[in-house]
Amino acid sequence: MTKLVLIRHGQSVWNQLDLFTGWTDVDLSPQGVEEAKEAGVKLKAAGLDFDICHTSVLKRAIKTSNLALEAMDRIWVPQFKSWQLNERHYGGLQGLNKTETAAKHGADQVKIWRRSYDIAPPVLAEDDERLPDADPRYADLSKEQLPRTESLKDCVARVVPYWTNVIAPQVKAGKRVLVAAHGNSLRGLVKYLSGMGDDEIVQFEIPTGKPIVYELDADLKALDRYFLD
Amino acid sequence: MTKLVLIRHGQSVWNQLDLFTGWTDVDLSPQGVEEAKEAGVKLKAAGLDFDICHTSVLKRAIKTSNLALEAMDRIWVPQFKSWQLNERHYGGLQGLNKTETAAKHGADQVKIWRRSYDIAPPVLAEDDERLPDADPRYADLSKEQLPRTESLKDCVARVVPYWTNVIAPQVKAGKRVLVAAHGNSLRGLVKYLSGMGDDEIVQFEIPTGKPIVYELDADLKALDRYFLD
Repeated sequence: MTKLVLIRHGQSVWNQLDLFTGWTDVDLSPQGVEEAKEAGVKLKAAGLDFDICHTSVLKRAIKTSNLALEAMDRIWVPQFKSWQLNERHYGGLQGLNKTETAAKHGADQVKIWRRSYDIAPPVLAEDDERLPDADPRYADLSKEQLPRTESLKDCVARVVPYWTNVIAPQVKAGKRVLVAAHGNSLRGLVKYLSGMGDDEIVQFEIPTGKPIVYELDADLKALDRYFLD
Repeated sequence: MTKLVLIRHGQSVWNQLDLFTGWTDVDLSPQGVEEAKEAGVKLKAAGLDFDICHTSVLKRAIKTSNLALEAMDRIWVPQFKSWQLNERHYGGLQGLNKTETAAKHGADQVKIWRRSYDIAPPVLAEDDERLPDADPRYADLSKEQLPRTESLKDCVARVVPYWTNVIAPQVKAGKRVLVAAHGNSLRGLVKYLSGMGDDEIVQFEIPTGKPIVYELDADLKALDRYFLD
């Protein structure tokens, strides 16, 4: 039996300001920093340890993994950063206030964007400064890989291959893996590992900084899943 | 012409206390944290940028690279941590006060340990708690690779193959590389890249947190080397 741990980044400054974030590279809030450290303390107290860490290319997830690992005296653990673990791209909603957007487009429409499985927020225009194209961290991505918006389904479609091709072989090889990522990229992993339906995963809430422990058998079938309190 | 940047970690708490450190995994001091951030600010102001970062498995170097890269808005740059970039192992001197050791063994003897090329400090006994053998970060090292002490020559002998096999091919492929490491592992790189003799390299001082810029030609021959002020 192998344990895999998933953790959503600590609170970010935009979580705090109630803005749609997506691929915007916002920092952790002071509370988020504490959540990340506290997660490391809890993981260590639970006797969990790691050989490898995977995270996104967004600083709120990278710093969460750094702070949690440092609290475990494991800052030296190899860390891999991949855009495929990024948050869902929120398209034209990125940077907008959630309450103001609800007032403008209606709460029902915002709920559809936030909680439907296959409906994406408005597509970014080709001259939008929020496009990821010019960001050097995405220089190796093809035009087709650079999103203009993503539904949760689109996000899952890039997360699962990263699991299958990169993380799963490491877990099968006996490596103890920590994945520090985002609400929706982690939904992708939970959907896949727990075999959740489309309706179920959109309702599954992942709090910031609260580790999810998976117990997996040799074929990586989930035997158990629980939050670490 | 490619630029390569080497940086020694910021001041550590044991630099501050004047203790021999070696492989002891001590943290940055508050001043060291500031030096690391300031290094990032200087690197960015000088128009330097990075595709890859290499560091040791010791937190003072890892955190220096994290802090410098974050100050450059480049915390997402891939980072590789290797024991071969660790500080020289200081054997039986690790944890001892430099002044007290000079009083006990004589200033001349301490100078020999610190500033000779091929004389190592006293060897750790096989029951010494400072042995690296039980530390999980060194679990993949063979018995022969786990040092009991190192001369600068021994340190150079593990640093140069890491350069040749790992870093140099990346630089040749056009990657802009940052190496965040330690006084003596960086001496290994400087000795090799600048073709310094044994006597010259032991006199070459590398201040904490002060980037060394190498300008290299296509064959990785050093065209220029300077500290970034």
